[in-house]
Amino acid sequence: MDLPTAEIVCLGNELLIGVTTNTNATFIGEKITRLGIEVRRVTCIRDDLELAVEFFLELFERKPDIIIVSGGLGPTYDDIQLEVLSKATSIELVKNSKALKQIKDFYELRNLSLTEDRVKMAYLPVEAIVFDNDVGSAPGCYFKYKEMSIYCLPGVPTEMKDIMNRHVIPKLKELNRSELFEKKFQIFGCAESQLAPFIKELKGEFEDLYIKSHPAYKDKQGIVIHISGVGDIAKTQVKTAIKKLRECFENNFTEARVMDLEE
Amino acid sequence: MDLPTAEIVCLGNELLIGVTTNTNATFIGEKITRLGIEVRRVTCIRDDLELAVEFFLELFERKPDIIIVSGGLGPTYDDIQLEVLSKATSIELVKNSKALKQIKDFYELRNLSLTEDRVKMAYLPVEAIVFDNDVGSAPGCYFKYKEMSIYCLPGVPTEMKDIMNRHVIPKLKELNRSELFEKKFQIFGCAESQLAPFIKELKGEFEDLYIKSHPAYKDKQGIVIHISGVGDIAKTQVKTAIKKLRECFENNFTEARVMDLEE
Repeated sequence: MDLPTAEIVCLGNELLIGVTTNTNATFIGEKITRLGIEVRRVTCIRDDLELAVEFFLELFERKPDIIIVSGGLGPTYDDIQLEVLSKATSIELVKNSKALKQIKDFYELRNLSLTEDRVKMAYLPVEAIVFDNDVGSAPGCYFKYKEMSIYCLPGVPTEMKDIMNRHVIPKLKELNRSELFEKKFQIFGCAESQLAPFIKELKGEFEDLYIKSHPAYKDKQGIVIHISGVGDIAKTQVKTAIKKLRECFENNFTEARVMDLEE
Repeated sequence: MDLPTAEIVCLGNELLIGVTTNTNATFIGEKITRLGIEVRRVTCIRDDLELAVEFFLELFERKPDIIIVSGGLGPTYDDIQLEVLSKATSIELVKNSKALKQIKDFYELRNLSLTEDRVKMAYLPVEAIVFDNDVGSAPGCYFKYKEMSIYCLPGVPTEMKDIMNRHVIPKLKELNRSELFEKKFQIFGCAESQLAPFIKELKGEFEDLYIKSHPAYKDKQGIVIHISGVGDIAKTQVKTAIKKLRECFENNFTEARVMDLEE
């Protein structure tokens, strides 16, 4: 089954030098995976105009259906997300009156003046749709380029989440109606390498499903298995696959215990 | 100043679908930044042979000095790191006797047999140097390809950290003797956008330094500023830059407080 594809791009040196852990990619990746979208790559790039433009030119060659960019929408000199996208797409940035109004309101409420650096945040790609930001000053936006849908979000996690939840997710839901069906469970009493041949066999049988095992990091015990699929038949397929896997545990690892995890 | 460049690559669907937050990149990025290495990109890619090989072929074109790959060295069917690197470099994988001995010892100690899937972990690129793993079963390794140094690490964080600390960091220190000098501090009483013009000016004056401000996420108060540089003159330059920035605060934001943060 061909799912819509996406790439997540996070802009900011702090993500490359170990100052900030990239929880934005976790949040975005989880949300859009649940919408039945295949995340192909997550890339963190530096606040460097030339390197970032080069990166986006390569990215556009891969033609993902959806590109979600976070970071670099703010007022500081190294907030260059839209400048980068403008250069890479040759789409001009223009002062967007809706965005400007939001920025103005945000600072007025805080008794701060509208400086040049703040006005910069209102320059969006021509024809971009503005996403208002309920938490911070920088509006997000959305625009199309060569059949690709580009979503531009701030990097501050609370602001990114606000715009994802109120704008991006509803918009993606409109475009894509096949949601993900997922089950996960944890197995105790056998090693991941003992399971490997059974999971490999199952994967061969259910090619459209995502089947993955990994050690349970949190409580450091057992192996977590995810099985998921997208679309109408996925629910039946996931259930059949789980039934087979359970039978295999019972036949091969008499001491193994299986625990269902929340969906 | 031209620093050695690096890219970090993390292999594993769990990083793309929001199941796991990429703390490996944070750890690796911080450690090698402190060694005076410029991290150019962090990329998370899927456990998909074709897509991953395509990714590495692009990466090799960018010719970073150092490539650190984590994830995909284990015994399961989707642990494909070395298969991917072998295909992308055309360097053959051969059974490495030192690696095999470590794997054998690891499973013997746990009364587990040496299955085909476990032996797979001993197949390393020809002439690779083995990094023993004190925490888990999969050995890491190091090899050269077209002037690029490639470090292969497991994805389980404790195992990755063990091999980074005992093998990779000492090896990188041998190659690169210019360490990073860094200062950070937190400012209360003015907005990031108010600081923006001053930081921009400072950045223009000290081109070789890394100067960055971001909101203080942890306690949600104030702005954190990092100033750092690499090499012998960085220490003096960082101190001069900080002095200038402090003077600017005192002159422009009479109510601002500055707090030094630990290095």
